[in-house]
Amino acid sequence: MFSIDLNCDMGESLGAWRMGNDAALMDYVSSINVACGFHAGDASVIRKTVETAIEKDVAIGAHPGFPDLQGFGRREIKMSAEEVFDIVLYQVSAVKGICQAFGGKLHHVKPHGALYNQAAKDASFAAAIAKAVKSIDDNLIFYGLSNSLLISEAEKIGLQTASEVFADRTYQADGSLTPRNEQNALIKDLEKAAAQVLQMVLEQKVTAANDETVSLKAETVCIHGDGEHALEFAKIINAKLKKCDIQIKSVS
Amino acid sequence: MFSIDLNCDMGESLGAWRMGNDAALMDYVSSINVACGFHAGDASVIRKTVETAIEKDVAIGAHPGFPDLQGFGRREIKMSAEEVFDIVLYQVSAVKGICQAFGGKLHHVKPHGALYNQAAKDASFAAAIAKAVKSIDDNLIFYGLSNSLLISEAEKIGLQTASEVFADRTYQADGSLTPRNEQNALIKDLEKAAAQVLQMVLEQKVTAANDETVSLKAETVCIHGDGEHALEFAKIINAKLKKCDIQIKSVS
Amino acid sequence: MFSIDLNCDMGESLGAWRMGNDAALMDYVSSINVACGFHAGDASVIRKTVETAIEKDVAIGAHPGFPDLQGFGRREIKMSAEEVFDIVLYQVSAVKGICQAFGGKLHHVKPHGALYNQAAKDASFAAAIAKAVKSIDDNLIFYGLSNSLLISEAEKIGLQTASEVFADRTYQADGSLTPRNEQNALIKDLEKAAAQVLQMVLEQKVTAANDETVSLKAETVCIHGDGEHALEFAKIINAKLKKCDIQIKSVS
Amino acid sequence: MFSIDLNCDMGESLGAWRMGNDAALMDYVSSINVACGFHAGDASVIRKTVETAIEKDVAIGAHPGFPDLQGFGRREIKMSAEEVFDIVLYQVSAVKGICQAFGGKLHHVKPHGALYNQAAKDASFAAAIAKAVKSIDDNLIFYGLSNSLLISEAEKIGLQTASEVFADRTYQADGSLTPRNEQNALIKDLEKAAAQVLQMVLEQKVTAANDETVSLKAETVCIHGDGEHALEFAKIINAKLKKCDIQIKSVS
Repeated sequence: MFSIDLNCDMGESLGAWRMGNDAALMDYVSSINVACGFHAGDASVIRKTVETAIEKDVAIGAHPGFPDLQGFGRREIKMSAEEVFDIVLYQVSAVKGICQAFGGKLHHVKPHGALYNQAAKDASFAAAIAKAVKSIDDNLIFYGLSNSLLISEAEKIGLQTASEVFADRTYQADGSLTPRNEQNALIKDLEKAAAQVLQMVLEQKVTAANDETVSLKAETVCIHGDGEHALEFAKIINAKLKKCDIQIKSVS
Repeated sequence: MFSIDLNCDMGESLGAWRMGNDAALMDYVSSINVACGFHAGDASVIRKTVETAIEKDVAIGAHPGFPDLQGFGRREIKMSAEEVFDIVLYQVSAVKGICQAFGGKLHHVKPHGALYNQAAKDASFAAAIAKAVKSIDDNLIFYGLSNSLLISEAEKIGLQTASEVFADRTYQADGSLTPRNEQNALIKDLEKAAAQVLQMVLEQKVTAANDETVSLKAETVCIHGDGEHALEFAKIINAKLKKCDIQIKSVS
Repeated sequence: MFSIDLNCDMGESLGAWRMGNDAALMDYVSSINVACGFHAGDASVIRKTVETAIEKDVAIGAHPGFPDLQGFGRREIKMSAEEVFDIVLYQVSAVKGICQAFGGKLHHVKPHGALYNQAAKDASFAAAIAKAVKSIDDNLIFYGLSNSLLISEAEKIGLQTASEVFADRTYQADGSLTPRNEQNALIKDLEKAAAQVLQMVLEQKVTAANDETVSLKAETVCIHGDGEHALEFAKIINAKLKKCDIQIKSVS
Repeated sequence: MFSIDLNCDMGESLGAWRMGNDAALMDYVSSINVACGFHAGDASVIRKTVETAIEKDVAIGAHPGFPDLQGFGRREIKMSAEEVFDIVLYQVSAVKGICQAFGGKLHHVKPHGALYNQAAKDASFAAAIAKAVKSIDDNLIFYGLSNSLLISEAEKIGLQTASEVFADRTYQADGSLTPRNEQNALIKDLEKAAAQVLQMVLEQKVTAANDETVSLKAETVCIHGDGEHALEFAKIINAKLKKCDIQIKSVS
């Protein structure tokens, strides 16, 4: 029987600013990535998100990012690998402690935004993040872009990884994501996105933008939580997967 | 045989801004309180401070404060008790995780600045901080102002406490500290400060500003680390205590 | 003929976080108060808000607050009067410069949230804010709570003031606002709120919560921009005022 | 008669953290660049720095940087040109307003750290900064690295510029600065640095690291204010220039 993890970024509100529909979305995903306060989230938002996740029994991950609230962690910052290690260690430790304080358990770590993208193609960044995660708990699962340095660097030091694929992004013939600034980067049609998810989960393949078929490891699918149709989209993906007898459960 | 804990606030640098002489001071105290990034410190400063403390074998505490870099956590902020719980939980978790990542162990928690002062006289604040600490690890020792609500609220929920006294502050007849804005609040004469420390440790008493003698529980003595003569002062206090056969060791 | 100013807080988005429906609301008010980046807003949000306001020809005010993004400037911070002067001078200067860069003109200053509330009852705070405003441009109009120290301290140093009243808040018999934590603090019925506005504008009186009638200077009415029905509310108030031949225009 | 401007970065303290010896250094330079609160400085530090500069009659410049306190504005951030425009407009406006409030006048703008370095080689960044400066006041003088895009982009839109050279940095044969990570990047010998300054001022040439002589426009010399020997260095340079009958005065 097939199974797949559906993950979603959460805890991205900040003080009076609301973002996402976290509690509702938790009913349709198996794992969540909680913003740690550097690019989004704050101590109260994190605590509430963790409490809800424990109640709803979804796997909790930390989602560390660059210290950049205005840029939402989406702007590259040229840090040293040591600084990257330090900010990941700090952020993941904070969220891990909050999980444990409420009887939960931190399950995984997935870097956010520009940190994720920079590390996917920079071995020293990927290694620094992986090392920070391992230093906290070597049972943490490392979520990273499928086929990227994030995965290979984490495996190199013995961390369990989960190869991430995207429901609503198109792929290139070399297996990389189509850059966001290209016109066909996003899949806006829900049916098409759902079909791509099924293809990736069932065949471990994806049809690239140029119609070639590319092999791809798919262990967890990222569902975006901040769009207008995020909840609807999560429901549809969830239903399609179940209809195909694919179990939705966190990576173990 | 008598013993006492000497504690000092550390890790108060921020990026390019240096504060304190941490490594040198660690040779003369038995426990340190590490700023957690909200009022001072950053992820890299905390990590380095923790590494040095493990090397020098001093007991490591977390020193959470208000989110106020410009004010160094010394300006009161009217938060709800729930917000106080959340920011303490976050900060202490971060520092605890960093300690563990380097093979160390978090030993205690001492609130900083305005958070310390507000909680010393506000039961809901004191209770919120104590609850956050207990939720992380009920073996953590809670450092607070001797005779204050910090101590009584922490004891109420079963935390071990350490009653803190100050080497360079004068006391009032009711056992409270002379407010900083009064002229005789600070003891600038090192010999006088050292004599006050000996009196507090050996007799559990202090001679107040009006010459009355006041009873006072003294389990840990705060040494300030950021003044011009901080290192010299720590050396003198340390030497005087040892000369009187008082062992300097962290609370256990 | 009667006239009144309708003002609304704006520019309260931050990076990826949206708040308020600024452009639409500008069609129904005569003046706006732009968050300056300390409690809300950022350099890009301010610039866009100012550009839209110039296009829509509403009077632009600066809306300085405490440096507290997480608390949205709604938590009291115990600063010195000198620090208050400094943060107001900095914030208002920034927004004034942005206005001028786009051919606009800063019209007024209204303190935000906890800074407004603290200064309304603390003469040293009110004086510090007024002094900062005057030091920038003594033609700036100072918006403050009707009957409060904000108004009297600003007048004392020769600033023109605009006494502010609230459409959706109830009043006490002494002319003060019912504290937000009391049950009847907010007027949720749009018709009632509109009626209160008319009473305040036409009679310079308000019926307090205990049914007594209180005198009150009403030169500008605050319309909240961040509620669910904010736009609808602004439209109704605007329409009712016009129906009574009350002109809606900024204070001059 | 020859004349030259000596400029120094100032106002880089933050709350309780002190940096530099601003007041003393002002006696030896003709213009200062005031940090604007994004990478260093805060509203109170800026106001005090401006007050001292007015008293000491040195030309005041704004020194805008990336929003990155921990990195002191020295880490590249990938912003859009529009975001760069916005943060420069905001910061320069704030400092300009503070100058005027105390009867002073903003004289120039010099970008800081990574913003300076990125813009020196990226035309869109340089143009965005120059455009922001011009939109505030087209009489502001634009300080930038000699021979770089900072200067050419500012001149393109009609701003007066001042070509900056460095006293304590070595140059390459192409006129660029030796990158900081190379061994001979810094000139630590005060006499050598002073000699280089004289050569640049008197001959508009510099001897590069490979002993070739390079032409170079030198209108303002940057003196670093944060090193251990900063004050001594400023005194020596100042004295040597005067001895050669070179007048030290701000660009006009």
